[in-house]
Amino acid sequence: MQYPDAIALANAIRNRETTAEAVVKNTLEQINQQNERLNCFTTVIADEAIASAVQIDRAIARGKEPGILAGVPFAVKNLFNIQGITTLAGSKIEREKPPAREDATAIKRLKEAGAVLVGALNMDEYAYGFVTENSHYRATPNPHDLTRIAGGSSGGSAAAVAAGLVPFSLGSDTNGSVRVPAALCGVYGFKPTYGRLSRAGAFLFSSSLDCIGHFARSVRDIATIFDIVQGEDSKDPVCTQKPAQLCLPELDRGIEGVKIAVADDYFAEGAEPEALAAVETVAELLGVTARVTIPETDRAKAAAYIITAAEGANWHLPNLRSRPQDFDPATRGRFLAGALIPATWYLQAQRFRRWYRQQFQSIWQQVDIILAPTTPCVAPLLGQEKIIIAGEEILVRPHLGRFTQPLSFIGLPVLSIPLKLSQRLPLGVQIIAPPYQESLILRVAATIEPKLPSF
Amino acid sequence: MQYPDAIALANAIRNRETTAEAVVKNTLEQINQQNERLNCFTTVIADEAIASAVQIDRAIARGKEPGILAGVPFAVKNLFNIQGITTLAGSKIEREKPPAREDATAIKRLKEAGAVLVGALNMDEYAYGFVTENSHYRATPNPHDLTRIAGGSSGGSAAAVAAGLVPFSLGSDTNGSVRVPAALCGVYGFKPTYGRLSRAGAFLFSSSLDCIGHFARSVRDIATIFDIVQGEDSKDPVCTQKPAQLCLPELDRGIEGVKIAVADDYFAEGAEPEALAAVETVAELLGVTARVTIPETDRAKAAAYIITAAEGANWHLPNLRSRPQDFDPATRGRFLAGALIPATWYLQAQRFRRWYRQQFQSIWQQVDIILAPTTPCVAPLLGQEKIIIAGEEILVRPHLGRFTQPLSFIGLPVLSIPLKLSQRLPLGVQIIAPPYQESLILRVAATIEPKLPSF
Repeated sequence: MQYPDAIALANAIRNRETTAEAVVKNTLEQINQQNERLNCFTTVIADEAIASAVQIDRAIARGKEPGILAGVPFAVKNLFNIQGITTLAGSKIEREKPPAREDATAIKRLKEAGAVLVGALNMDEYAYGFVTENSHYRATPNPHDLTRIAGGSSGGSAAAVAAGLVPFSLGSDTNGSVRVPAALCGVYGFKPTYGRLSRAGAFLFSSSLDCIGHFARSVRDIATIFDIVQGEDSKDPVCTQKPAQLCLPELDRGIEGVKIAVADDYFAEGAEPEALAAVETVAELLGVTARVTIPETDRAKAAAYIITAAEGANWHLPNLRSRPQDFDPATRGRFLAGALIPATWYLQAQRFRRWYRQQFQSIWQQVDIILAPTTPCVAPLLGQEKIIIAGEEILVRPHLGRFTQPLSFIGLPVLSIPLKLSQRLPLGVQIIAPPYQESLILRVAATIEPKLPSF
Repeated sequence: MQYPDAIALANAIRNRETTAEAVVKNTLEQINQQNERLNCFTTVIADEAIASAVQIDRAIARGKEPGILAGVPFAVKNLFNIQGITTLAGSKIEREKPPAREDATAIKRLKEAGAVLVGALNMDEYAYGFVTENSHYRATPNPHDLTRIAGGSSGGSAAAVAAGLVPFSLGSDTNGSVRVPAALCGVYGFKPTYGRLSRAGAFLFSSSLDCIGHFARSVRDIATIFDIVQGEDSKDPVCTQKPAQLCLPELDRGIEGVKIAVADDYFAEGAEPEALAAVETVAELLGVTARVTIPETDRAKAAAYIITAAEGANWHLPNLRSRPQDFDPATRGRFLAGALIPATWYLQAQRFRRWYRQQFQSIWQQVDIILAPTTPCVAPLLGQEKIIIAGEEILVRPHLGRFTQPLSFIGLPVLSIPLKLSQRLPLGVQIIAPPYQESLILRVAATIEPKLPSF
């Protein structure tokens, strides 16, 4: 892609350096050429996208304001409803469902801002995984090394942006499903506060934890998309009425007086040295030396696992009973395990969640922003089951969420920023803030963005 | 008791027809004489009560405003914290706990209004029952017939008011634990909207459902106590910030234009004819002929059971594991069953709860108030396990909550009003309103109160 980000592309279209039609047609051509290899897209929307682009070009020609993202192509994880298309959520089972009657709220708002939807993207079945090795739709490989995973569950969304097929995409994050693939694919991945962005029209997985989020190549794109999608939505009962707080105008405010610390203890263990070095690199760029300890994080991860498995199993129980053979083997086992969890475990996990959230109250009195690794390692190989970290052989799939899961557990907003150290593979660093402090996260990210090595 | 209700008694004390000291001493004397037989009180508070009464009399003598309930004795279900006394919650296990450090919020507010706490009252262990046949503290019999149950779990609270030992008392209602004993003992029992009254300092049972409530002998007493206790409490996270809406000044507004209907279907089945006749009697007094159908009420009862058992089991799990022999056999079995409930049942029950609450949205567009029986029968005999209703032999204990459980399931405010038909035993009728419409319930009750046969 010849433009660095969505905003640059939108400006070029608005200034008539190029046209929306040319951009969209070129995007469709690239998808057509590369998707067999990259396997990001499960659905391509061509005719409607071109028609939208033509309309945008006409509006621009007539001097109308076409919207801040006018003519910018984007795509969405295939768990978002797209009018007229059946929502797959990475499954075989959902293929039998009728087409969605309307777009998800997030898609509607992006289209209103002029963005052009060009397709739906691969994911782990029902969003239950960190690898996007989907048995029905094949694995989405990592664009930086096609023998490796893109991460998941929003793997298609991260890879499509990393490969330059689209400048931004939507995903969802229950335990790290935006942040993990963002880190492994080397793009920005943003999971706002639980309840901040409308989930209306998104296929749910674990309602206590599910957030929608997005991928992009610049901080200003992340802020712009957030600003477009945020705001109350009566169709989503958990979408809170917090006053809209636009982030884009705040990006250049700097971070003087902002107290930042690196998470130690749990967040400095169980990772390859390079993952921890990535955090130190960001800390150095920000001049941060402070450390902060978050207690009982291992329990938070376990409790998040219990809530996810139990809620996911409840959601899919009728199909688990009647047609288990139609599930992806990887997710089937997790859902069946979830169906066996006693209610008292689930309730204890929810009680612990309240306790853990309270612990953060005192942490947020000491610091404004916390830094932590996004994943414990660079992208593992496709099919790789185990990894050796600090001399210990551990399972790859659950461990990829080690650093993301305890944070989404209590709904915190987190941006994963992309980093490249000595290796040729990307890594991510999480910038974590108190609930509803998305703006602060993006200001911190904007401060270091120019100093980060680009891919 | 020579005064018809708490307000009449408070007025007599304020007007110096009697003194708080004489009233409290007489109350303590009556408890002393009758409690061996009635077994309502598990703790009597004498010295402190007399000291409070003496202070109130002094304040009155000095011309100070002593509070609307000045000098009125009351008592509380023994799951409310009373400063300096160990909170039993009907159990043997809790005896080992230290004394409570402060009064429950509801007690504090009542004391501030001049009421004098004289003791704590018997209940089913951990509030899990409808009979108050407590294996540690014996059964509380029904004051109208000592061979019968008082109902539960707030049996001591209902019986103490019915026997005239105190003019009012506090209880708690998770599935009917205020309304059932109120009906069987022939007193008013009020369960306000979930979250309306602070639960701070009350021993919880099933946090999704638990409400505190109260018993009294007149509608104006019920309104007065509600007005005193209502209002936000930072110590209780579920105590909502709804603006205080005083009910006492509203009582005489009448009910012109209020749409009232009798619940049919589920609420007109599974009951002795007399219980249904009680509802018809109230309907006739109000000139009501309309009927309303609440769908899937049997499922609501089942779902309430699942939530209660699972949350209760979670709360007591460590003791269930380490010392099951110390539980009351009646509650132990229920808690152990709750510990075996799968998380997916619990989640499905919570999902159904949201559905059932939505069904009521359309019902509340048709009617303002619903009438239903409180219990399906008059008080069964102590120890009675089965009852024959409509030719079918059914278990007494779970069936006593048939009509109360589906309503507290979604947090509705309900008043049980006492009625006496042909038999010598009381029955109750539930007056049900939408959330936060306590005032409307009390206006309806005040309208028919003068027409009800007194005991």
